[in-house]
Amino acid sequence: MTDIKVADSVADFLAKQGIRHVFGIIGSANAHLFDAVYQHPKLELVCLHHEQACVMAAHGYFMQSGRMAAVLVTAGAGITNALTGVVGSWADSVPVLILSGQEATKQFKSNNLARMIGIQGVYVESIYKTCTKNVVTCQDPEQVLREVATALNFAKTDRQGPCIVDIPIDLQAARLDVDVAESALAVPLSPIQPQLSCLASEDLHQLADALQKSQAPLLWLGNGLRRLASDDLRTLVKDLGVPYLTSWTANDLFSPIEGLYAGHAGTYGGRAGNVLLQSCDLLITLGTRLAIPQKGYLDDELARRAEIFVVDCDQVELDKLGSRFSKKFLADAPTALTQIHAVVQSVGQLAIELWLEHVREVRQEMPLVEACHRNETWIDSYSFMAELGSAARSDVTFVTDMGTALISGFQVLEPSDGQRLFTSQGLGEMGYGLPGAIGAWFADADRKVVCLNCDGGLMMNLQDLHSVISHEIPLKIVIFNNDGYLMIKHTQNAIVGGRRAGTDAGSGLTCPNYESLVKAFGFRYLSLRKADLTSDVIQNFLQAEGPVILEVFMAPDQLLVPKLSVSITADGRLVSPPLEDLSPLLTLQSLKKNLLVPLHPKSISLDRVVSDSKGDAIY
Amino acid sequence: MTDIKVADSVADFLAKQGIRHVFGIIGSANAHLFDAVYQHPKLELVCLHHEQACVMAAHGYFMQSGRMAAVLVTAGAGITNALTGVVGSWADSVPVLILSGQEATKQFKSNNLARMIGIQGVYVESIYKTCTKNVVTCQDPEQVLREVATALNFAKTDRQGPCIVDIPIDLQAARLDVDVAESALAVPLSPIQPQLSCLASEDLHQLADALQKSQAPLLWLGNGLRRLASDDLRTLVKDLGVPYLTSWTANDLFSPIEGLYAGHAGTYGGRAGNVLLQSCDLLITLGTRLAIPQKGYLDDELARRAEIFVVDCDQVELDKLGSRFSKKFLADAPTALTQIHAVVQSVGQLAIELWLEHVREVRQEMPLVEACHRNETWIDSYSFMAELGSAARSDVTFVTDMGTALISGFQVLEPSDGQRLFTSQGLGEMGYGLPGAIGAWFADADRKVVCLNCDGGLMMNLQDLHSVISHEIPLKIVIFNNDGYLMIKHTQNAIVGGRRAGTDAGSGLTCPNYESLVKAFGFRYLSLRKADLTSDVIQNFLQAEGPVILEVFMAPDQLLVPKLSVSITADGRLVSPPLEDLSPLLTLQSLKKNLLVPLHPKSISLDRVVSDSKGDAIY
Repeated sequence: MTDIKVADSVADFLAKQGIRHVFGIIGSANAHLFDAVYQHPKLELVCLHHEQACVMAAHGYFMQSGRMAAVLVTAGAGITNALTGVVGSWADSVPVLILSGQEATKQFKSNNLARMIGIQGVYVESIYKTCTKNVVTCQDPEQVLREVATALNFAKTDRQGPCIVDIPIDLQAARLDVDVAESALAVPLSPIQPQLSCLASEDLHQLADALQKSQAPLLWLGNGLRRLASDDLRTLVKDLGVPYLTSWTANDLFSPIEGLYAGHAGTYGGRAGNVLLQSCDLLITLGTRLAIPQKGYLDDELARRAEIFVVDCDQVELDKLGSRFSKKFLADAPTALTQIHAVVQSVGQLAIELWLEHVREVRQEMPLVEACHRNETWIDSYSFMAELGSAARSDVTFVTDMGTALISGFQVLEPSDGQRLFTSQGLGEMGYGLPGAIGAWFADADRKVVCLNCDGGLMMNLQDLHSVISHEIPLKIVIFNNDGYLMIKHTQNAIVGGRRAGTDAGSGLTCPNYESLVKAFGFRYLSLRKADLTSDVIQNFLQAEGPVILEVFMAPDQLLVPKLSVSITADGRLVSPPLEDLSPLLTLQSLKKNLLVPLHPKSISLDRVVSDSKGDAIY
Repeated sequence: MTDIKVADSVADFLAKQGIRHVFGIIGSANAHLFDAVYQHPKLELVCLHHEQACVMAAHGYFMQSGRMAAVLVTAGAGITNALTGVVGSWADSVPVLILSGQEATKQFKSNNLARMIGIQGVYVESIYKTCTKNVVTCQDPEQVLREVATALNFAKTDRQGPCIVDIPIDLQAARLDVDVAESALAVPLSPIQPQLSCLASEDLHQLADALQKSQAPLLWLGNGLRRLASDDLRTLVKDLGVPYLTSWTANDLFSPIEGLYAGHAGTYGGRAGNVLLQSCDLLITLGTRLAIPQKGYLDDELARRAEIFVVDCDQVELDKLGSRFSKKFLADAPTALTQIHAVVQSVGQLAIELWLEHVREVRQEMPLVEACHRNETWIDSYSFMAELGSAARSDVTFVTDMGTALISGFQVLEPSDGQRLFTSQGLGEMGYGLPGAIGAWFADADRKVVCLNCDGGLMMNLQDLHSVISHEIPLKIVIFNNDGYLMIKHTQNAIVGGRRAGTDAGSGLTCPNYESLVKAFGFRYLSLRKADLTSDVIQNFLQAEGPVILEVFMAPDQLLVPKLSVSITADGRLVSPPLEDLSPLLTLQSLKKNLLVPLHPKSISLDRVVSDSKGDAIY
């Protein structure tokens, strides 16, 4: 009888299931697993310096490659430190397998509810119950193997997300007969395929009919489509010939299709995207959860002349949508799109030439970078993004942090030809950018990974600047220096009369001198203060070998626009304009020219001279 | 009718209730509260750079002063980032009031269970339910005030701990009639006093009888006694005349009483403390939760000839204790001690002269720093601690991180004359030291705060080195450089044959060059590599003005001893020795001389030459 140590069996299983990288930090409660993973010839153990960064790296790893990474943390603070990364992966439907060490099983025998379990253990199941697909603390050696196999599978099926297997230290060290181990691992290995339904025939035909009748149909493509290969997806959409918006998480699904791509929409949407959204007469959303930044707060004003069909694989997300969304189909988005494509193909091309022409015109009329993005004194982040976008080749992956990096990055960059652009879109936690980019590089070391950060947010994972150096990752990091938390300064402009508190150096919040700091870490440092040098510096930055940081000095009060802002009517009332009427407000004429629906009464009522950016005080 | 904004009312209430400092980070979901706190003339808002650090600072603030601080975080990642600090406060019974911003109330109306609430909201109640005294997401403006008042009170009563009030952004901005606001705040203001019971008369007399009869009684004092003023507590114990141990969290309750102080005990206990613990015939524990590092794993071997009485205010902690602890009394420790003192006083002094003499002898025979703590090549952390302890004056507060700082700090330093020594003892999270020390300084800026860190653990809150500089905190920080995670290296020696994985530079884990890094932050930097210079450098370090960091280079494999370690019997079996038999193992003669009970059969069975440190592989 041959036996195997449970920790070794787990490591071997991970390798066999295609896991290549494990991000982790060792502690006394995961030391057997750490040893097993580190010794395994087919697994690479990547040590970072905070557990939140480990999970965020696994998030970025999956976003880049579609392959899962595992995370290995210890008991107590090891697993509590992981929370923000886990919730971020949960929000973005990113599968991550988290293995946490735990106190020995005998500490659970008494079912005690004291504040700590054993020496440093915490109640992992209760903390993580509502923000993971599954979390379980194992109680015997075979269960460890069953749960690991189940979690690896479950994380990747249906709507994806993180799973936690919490493994007491004695079980890691336990030994099992190899046959017993193998059968424990085999049980849950149903094929790793989406178990999702297609559109019911009735629903499909209702939808196809609507498409046939529509004069101005619009697709809204979401991240749920990512299971389809990029080229296949692009071909489907191109063949279908229907204009489309992308959600921010779906913007890099495939290279924009000239003539069909309508941009992106939302409270920080592109002007063209929002105008086209509001102009369509049929809206079909596919695999996007219609978060508030995307659909706005007032459902009745969304695509107000359109019929809306929603296709999503998560009943809970469908249930959350109000009465404006009456046609909701529980189905796998890639399957649904394939079905729709087949039906439309069978009845011939859609007759929407005028609409297609309008889409092209609006996209031309309303460019992403506008006059308000010019600045003589500072670098404007929008103009910078436009230059960065043009300079970047197809092998570039942009990973953004929050604030300026997120907003101007996603508003301006339109990834094409295999470029990638992502962040932790749902939770939007400051600090994601750096570990997300580290994860992306481990997933594909041939990519040129450009990490877009801000001075405030970078602090949240500052420690892992060292990991970039120690693991010799040729990361290109931009730090937008805007003296603190720029987005919140705009919130303060909107809701507390512009009073500052904890948002800039004048109100108690400073960031370090990044030049000396990042040099001390071992980075090459570049900076940019004058607009006329932008393209040269960007070229130097992108072509630099090894880890390099470019600090971009922008106006500490630069607007992040266009965006939906509370505005003022001629008779002095504050109103929230409809989605097409972003600040800075355009003239009514310009709006009217591009919109295929009548101007909204609220738009007509606005005092367009007095109104200006009132921040994001809409809730 | 005058009205008041809810956020202002909350800020005003905090100030009136004696809160002076609020540690926080702003976001769009707590911006009204941030504004109100920042504007309030009697509140100081301290911005740090990670929410975990904010809660840890509030922990250190309370440990230093016995006064509560508040913490103000935003929705989503703001509150998820706080988890580790909250669990640490929960474990250590430290009251902290955490106010978190949340999405607007209308996002809760549909009772939806989608992965995110509103834009960035998370389910705070479900995450924090089992690691706080109370957590509630408010649904109307009056409830906000009621819950804040209740939480502030509740955190400080009975067994203390953190409370979270989760406040949607619309409620922060809401206005209430001032009378309505005042009555909402008034409701829960029962007097903030322990609602704890005294010892029942029968129990008290049982205990007092046992004391009268005992030849060798021993008290084990815990942190639960801290409600008594230090001097009063010392007088009580001195008057009682019974030798005492302190738990690690209670070591700085009062200046050691010469002749009565028996030291500390446990798996990393002092040798004298453990021998005296095992020698006593009556053990009375007061306000200590008898965690495993304190009592060891094998209850039957603890104080094996003694009757044990346990006094604790938390029934759950009493319930967790096994059958060895038959006399368990639910009572407030300070009250119980006062009662015991009164009864003993009334019947005259205890006749325990021989025992007192033995306590003095054992303390002399078994010093804290031993021959094994000498090192010719590197600085030994124990010898360093001894020098640091002698050089420190009464105005010094030591705040430790984990690993070397924790173990050698708590094993060697014996705070006296008002010196303080604390850490996050229960959860023991790496990274606590720095924010804990920051909190301690804000609680009492007249203290000289010395923060004891290690190269590995400091990384976990590295960002807040900047806060030390920006807030001009004259912190004295020691970094023990031991090439990674020293304690876990010893674990690896014990359980995986010494194989390294993610614990040092040779196995994938490096730390930055701290000299250049901390200079870049703006610290003065000192280092210590040779033992003969220790006392000079320590003097320079302690007398430096402003923020200063001393890096201490120790052997990367230095032992952290004495400690309870798995040892080897003459016939080759591995056994866990009894608590008095710490490694490095003493001779049987030496043990026998100091122990008042017969040698344990396991001690007799050990091969004392072959056995050496086997790490902490006991679980």
